[in-house]
Amino acid sequence: MNRKIIATLAATIFLLSACSDPTGEDTGTKTIVTSEKADTTTTTNNQLSDDYYKTMITNGNYQVSKTRGSTLGLNSNFNLKAFETGLMSLSQLHFNTEDYYFQEGQYIDSTTANTWLRRASKENPDGLNPEDNGKIEPNERNPYYLNSILEQDYMIKKDDKFTLGGISIGLSMNAIDYYQKVAFGADYETKISRDELLKQGKEMANKIVQRLRETQGIGDIPITVGIFEQSPKDSLAGGSFIAEAISEKGDTKVGEWKELNQEKVIFPLVDKTSNELTSFENFKSEVEYFFPNLSGVTAEASYTNDQLMKMKVTITTQFYGESEMIGFTQYVTEKAVTFLPPAIPIEITIESINGTEAFMARKAGETAFITHVFD
Amino acid sequence: MNRKIIATLAATIFLLSACSDPTGEDTGTKTIVTSEKADTTTTTNNQLSDDYYKTMITNGNYQVSKTRGSTLGLNSNFNLKAFETGLMSLSQLHFNTEDYYFQEGQYIDSTTANTWLRRASKENPDGLNPEDNGKIEPNERNPYYLNSILEQDYMIKKDDKFTLGGISIGLSMNAIDYYQKVAFGADYETKISRDELLKQGKEMANKIVQRLRETQGIGDIPITVGIFEQSPKDSLAGGSFIAEAISEKGDTKVGEWKELNQEKVIFPLVDKTSNELTSFENFKSEVEYFFPNLSGVTAEASYTNDQLMKMKVTITTQFYGESEMIGFTQYVTEKAVTFLPPAIPIEITIESINGTEAFMARKAGETAFITHVFD
Repeated sequence: MNRKIIATLAATIFLLSACSDPTGEDTGTKTIVTSEKADTTTTTNNQLSDDYYKTMITNGNYQVSKTRGSTLGLNSNFNLKAFETGLMSLSQLHFNTEDYYFQEGQYIDSTTANTWLRRASKENPDGLNPEDNGKIEPNERNPYYLNSILEQDYMIKKDDKFTLGGISIGLSMNAIDYYQKVAFGADYETKISRDELLKQGKEMANKIVQRLRETQGIGDIPITVGIFEQSPKDSLAGGSFIAEAISEKGDTKVGEWKELNQEKVIFPLVDKTSNELTSFENFKSEVEYFFPNLSGVTAEASYTNDQLMKMKVTITTQFYGESEMIGFTQYVTEKAVTFLPPAIPIEITIESINGTEAFMARKAGETAFITHVFD
Repeated sequence: MNRKIIATLAATIFLLSACSDPTGEDTGTKTIVTSEKADTTTTTNNQLSDDYYKTMITNGNYQVSKTRGSTLGLNSNFNLKAFETGLMSLSQLHFNTEDYYFQEGQYIDSTTANTWLRRASKENPDGLNPEDNGKIEPNERNPYYLNSILEQDYMIKKDDKFTLGGISIGLSMNAIDYYQKVAFGADYETKISRDELLKQGKEMANKIVQRLRETQGIGDIPITVGIFEQSPKDSLAGGSFIAEAISEKGDTKVGEWKELNQEKVIFPLVDKTSNELTSFENFKSEVEYFFPNLSGVTAEASYTNDQLMKMKVTITTQFYGESEMIGFTQYVTEKAVTFLPPAIPIEITIESINGTEAFMARKAGETAFITHVFD
């Protein structure tokens, strides 16, 4: 859909909505309805897939995060999505999607998060990033190691009441700390080694767990911490979680760290060859051969322990008409079945200047793709 | 996905691809392979749904329309998609998706189409739009009735050979003819009544059929013609086909016209009330109640003979993070099942400033939605 049209549409609707009661309730009976709802905590019945938790709904509203929007400060949208969904996946190691319900973080508020993210100083003793040492050269200054903190709450249901069952904390760490020597000046970069990043992240994890243990309402519930390494600003791949640990039984620090061998690479830009890259390149050639004009074809391949777990393909093409798009989608689906690695989940999006034109997806273990052409 | 990133991505890939053989074949054996392919006409095996035809592939390539891109001149993207997919749907009245294969129009080329679309004059006797009468006022001038011509070919397979089985012609007519009195001047509008639009379209249909009968390769195969009424430039709904007829057995004109009572309206902007509008408004209220911030919710409802056939819902919201989007999608799916009209096909798209964030679809007669959150 055309961007301009969306904008006009949004403006029109907001205008209309402002004149009407957003709850859709008859204003005359509003008080009664509201009081009826006062103690209602429900969840979405609809669980999208085994990979998603059911979501908590309190009084018909979604409880937004106390640090809402804070992940928008990550290096890229790819990092944001990898960070949030990655922490949900990590959480499944300890909190299963059957018994636990998802709620956005309600214990660390914005003020606290900002205090923790700033540099340590006399005025800000709780800052987790190191003191300013007065240097400005990339290899001399103390970088910001920690970029963002994400809290997720996992609730359990007992006798129709929900109580906190677990907390997951994600620490988004900078592999590159982008900074300016003067305000609005040129961008400089301090590179941070993975060893240093892990060392810093692990120390911060213990400090955060200790502070959370003193936070009202948390008590001795399990707290897991994941260390996320951001990908650079210009990367087409999102970052990955590289280590995780859990603090159980009210411990004021986490237990043993488990290193996670996860990696995301972009095909065909990756420089090491593999069977998957060859498969992808054959697919790409076939797709590009369909039209007289060229399409751009790339994929984000996610590896765990050097095994391909998931592939997300993006095809960028020119839009000449709906019939072409339908024919192209049929063709791409067919070539995906033939050439792309079997058994793993695959997502394919066809994009044009107008936005998303078509979309195909296959779940793990399936052979057929679900296909949709937007019209 | 971020627009800027797509652009960068596309540029990168085009650069890479320019250095490699786009067919993916080893250049050494190219001649042989090409000659092997010379007579190969295949089709996509993958038929997206019963509503789509299988597409013809000639020598591994998609045969683009001889007037490729001409539908881009319609009033809006909504009209473009409604025009192309609408003509495919009409074609199913005469050419079933089981026996017929889709091919883009190969008989009317760009030069011919342009000649036909221009005004009639001494220099352009074949022009289908009326002569310039020298007037410039909206109600005095002769408007352009015909905006665009679309040809679709329907092929049949016999002994592994494909032959032309039918042709569909779509005539996109202006209900409003937008024009300038002076080049690059202000926009003026000549309104055209539906009666006049139909009268003109029917006359043009016969002229086109007569000309096609004289075109080599067409002979006496059936030709269907559909008259499409464009929606205005600022409408959020696409136009509709309002009449159709067929010329069989080599007739030089079409047979009896069948009027099509099709209409597309936008909820909640429509001014007449209906059960469907009430259902939609309840759905909208529930969706808007989920978040403390407002979302824009609209739907395009397609009617045939005053019966609701299809609904396309667009939700525009702000993006604060992936977890919220997952929770929101779960919630929207649930409310769609509860509040939106049952049995009919429904498509729901959640859009943010980043593009399409999530997508839900249900086919006719099903109760469950297919759901996808883009990450």
